[in-house]
Amino acid sequence: MPSSSVDPADLIVVSVDDHVVEPPDMFEGRLPRAYADRAPRVIENDAGQEMWLFEGTEIPNFGLNAVSGRPQEEYGIEPTRFDEIRRGCWDVDARVEDMDAGGVLASLNFPSFPQFCGQIFAGTEDKGLALAVLQAYNDWHVEDWAGAHPGRFIPLALVPYWDPELMAAEVHRVADRGVRAITWSENPEKIGVPSFHSPHWDPFWRACDEREMVICLHIGSSSAVKLPSVEAPFTTMMNLQPTAVMDTAADLLWSRVIREFPHIRFALSEGSIGWIPYLLERADYVYEHHARWTGTDFGGRLPSEVFRDHFLACFIEDAAGLRLLDLIGPDIVCLEVDYPHSDSTWPHTPERLARTLGDLDRGTVDAITHGNALRHFGLDPFAHLPREQCTVGALRARATHVDVGPAEPRRPFVAPERPLTLMDMLSQAAHPLLDDQAEAEGVAPEKESA
Amino acid sequence: MPSSSVDPADLIVVSVDDHVVEPPDMFEGRLPRAYADRAPRVIENDAGQEMWLFEGTEIPNFGLNAVSGRPQEEYGIEPTRFDEIRRGCWDVDARVEDMDAGGVLASLNFPSFPQFCGQIFAGTEDKGLALAVLQAYNDWHVEDWAGAHPGRFIPLALVPYWDPELMAAEVHRVADRGVRAITWSENPEKIGVPSFHSPHWDPFWRACDEREMVICLHIGSSSAVKLPSVEAPFTTMMNLQPTAVMDTAADLLWSRVIREFPHIRFALSEGSIGWIPYLLERADYVYEHHARWTGTDFGGRLPSEVFRDHFLACFIEDAAGLRLLDLIGPDIVCLEVDYPHSDSTWPHTPERLARTLGDLDRGTVDAITHGNALRHFGLDPFAHLPREQCTVGALRARATHVDVGPAEPRRPFVAPERPLTLMDMLSQAAHPLLDDQAEAEGVAPEKESA
Repeated sequence: MPSSSVDPADLIVVSVDDHVVEPPDMFEGRLPRAYADRAPRVIENDAGQEMWLFEGTEIPNFGLNAVSGRPQEEYGIEPTRFDEIRRGCWDVDARVEDMDAGGVLASLNFPSFPQFCGQIFAGTEDKGLALAVLQAYNDWHVEDWAGAHPGRFIPLALVPYWDPELMAAEVHRVADRGVRAITWSENPEKIGVPSFHSPHWDPFWRACDEREMVICLHIGSSSAVKLPSVEAPFTTMMNLQPTAVMDTAADLLWSRVIREFPHIRFALSEGSIGWIPYLLERADYVYEHHARWTGTDFGGRLPSEVFRDHFLACFIEDAAGLRLLDLIGPDIVCLEVDYPHSDSTWPHTPERLARTLGDLDRGTVDAITHGNALRHFGLDPFAHLPREQCTVGALRARATHVDVGPAEPRRPFVAPERPLTLMDMLSQAAHPLLDDQAEAEGVAPEKESA
Repeated sequence: MPSSSVDPADLIVVSVDDHVVEPPDMFEGRLPRAYADRAPRVIENDAGQEMWLFEGTEIPNFGLNAVSGRPQEEYGIEPTRFDEIRRGCWDVDARVEDMDAGGVLASLNFPSFPQFCGQIFAGTEDKGLALAVLQAYNDWHVEDWAGAHPGRFIPLALVPYWDPELMAAEVHRVADRGVRAITWSENPEKIGVPSFHSPHWDPFWRACDEREMVICLHIGSSSAVKLPSVEAPFTTMMNLQPTAVMDTAADLLWSRVIREFPHIRFALSEGSIGWIPYLLERADYVYEHHARWTGTDFGGRLPSEVFRDHFLACFIEDAAGLRLLDLIGPDIVCLEVDYPHSDSTWPHTPERLARTLGDLDRGTVDAITHGNALRHFGLDPFAHLPREQCTVGALRARATHVDVGPAEPRRPFVAPERPLTLMDMLSQAAHPLLDDQAEAEGVAPEKESA
């Protein structure tokens, strides 16, 4: 039976890329007494906008474009209050209901306000405070988020990247608590620390190698956007952004890291997969033509073979990539839902996926929808819920009360007169990613008061 | 019959990406009297190295790594004398013999010492001299290079990009001489002029639109290299460099240029094709999710459909891309040989290509090996040579005297002790592309005297 005729209701869906919007009470009772009154907290400004405040810095973009359930016309407008986003963004019980409604059995959740690597914490001068807050964050994630519904979440931890020995210690600490996934940077050099090639990071690599920790490198985790020109329409950046981790994949593929740390594995989060066959064929071509004079040695194997030992390839929707799955590696490809961001397929993930499965056999479909994710991240949901209750159909059957939207528009839609650019976006909303890029490009236009 | 069983000898091969190394006498008698003694000329320094000299600037890398016929171990060593490169690099009669030996019927040749856009000319203060030299270059290319063997070359012209009106005039001037291809920049902003999005270029776009000129954007034509970190091995850059024009394709796809100039077409030279299905699927996804709020309008069509009207997709070797040819567009894909550079498949192009044809039908194989190139660039070689004399087998039969084998090593090979980096390369040889990058990265190590 070709999988294109698989009933979406029969699939089991595990997503390795979703996002938690941190609830305001997350740090309550979690910090040592000395730091308790310096924990990040949510404030409201005179304009009625909510934002996190930490050590004097306001972080307005608390939801990283958390628009699931909003009308498509509003995707460009940053929600500015918790009551403007779905409760499932920040309330774990509501999240599990949204997962049920979307047919999603289990989910890995990246942070929002601290940014992908915890840049907000790392930027603090008082590194004692920074570490305390970061560890409180991880403990909250393990206990109150992932721990609230056993078997439904793949826990993920931040690392104190200002000190490789502290990173290693945190890897061991969270590994002891059952964590198998770390979120870090697609290009550390761009967040102001040494590149992947520096021995500086060896304590961290060693710890991840020992504990078989998957290091998740999410697009945007270099705090940079991919845009050939600031005058280009904003959609150009959206088109190209996933390929930021294509550069990352090449950067790590030729590095000493994957050769010297045999169990290390990187997830190319939200990087998609359709470009991988090209990148690997080109890598093999370069190796064939240029290995000797460049002093490169993959130990009698091809770069494309070594790639499969050290990466996870992750996709939201990618029919082209699935047609070349044999060239990527059926054992390293994992599905993503990206709830609650604007590129998410939620709540239609199973149906959209089914349209792109072509003639993949059922075993392969099961591998990419959940088997690979569960194996690589060490989760066993079936220890908590019998397998037959884990299917899309079974999960949705208990979520018939969930309204999956879209919600009423917050304001009437006014179509832009011309394609919006990065500059237009910057003048509309504060956004840490865009701010960094604007700084790099030497363009930092005045914002409306945020 | 599946094309994987096609006899390579039966193919007809046209290459849309090769390189001419300019011969020292190219400007003789071609400049107006006022400028005659200021023409670029070849000099030899005390170390016996040859290089071009123009307005006081030495251009040592006269061959852009012209290593065809050298042993693979020497690919990283820049040839520094004309007698170190194959005669076919710079002598058009020898070139045609090399084309015969490689089974190549016709070839499009990019410039070497002037750089891909003629940056060497554009950088001159005296713009009268710059234009005279550029026009002399184009006339030499049309008459002495492409004109020497009618039907064997697709002529290509440089444009005076310091002035859009002059560019338009040059487009018309060379179009009148039978040229249908312009070489320009994959990212003009990076060579110090306005981006693709500026109306500044409209006179140039209008002329290209009117004359149905293909604008060839070769990788490297932004004078920038693609490298996630300067500490990364040099092979990382080789792996990623073709995707520089992936960014270019996205930049132009969402721009007003292709919507306002209906006949304009861009060749993504040496960009390869395996990433195109991914880029287009992602473009359609972005359009579906974000068209309304971003103010984007492709006039009732999908970005992937519009792409096929405005691009040529060019590849040296790309089995992954050929497997997804239906998603790229069988009518816009063209083969490249890349003689005499280190990534070239010469003299084994037909055999290497045949291994990657899979189950493509013969009509499609003929389209990508020569049909598309001849149609888009307006060349009719069969007006000069009967079709049955144009096949790989027929061409090679008359070139049995050509020695294609690797030459003797110039020096004993010493394997590098560790993978070479950009910094290592910079310390070995002067290279304009690498110099620009080094400057951009703030690293410009001392060179050995060149």
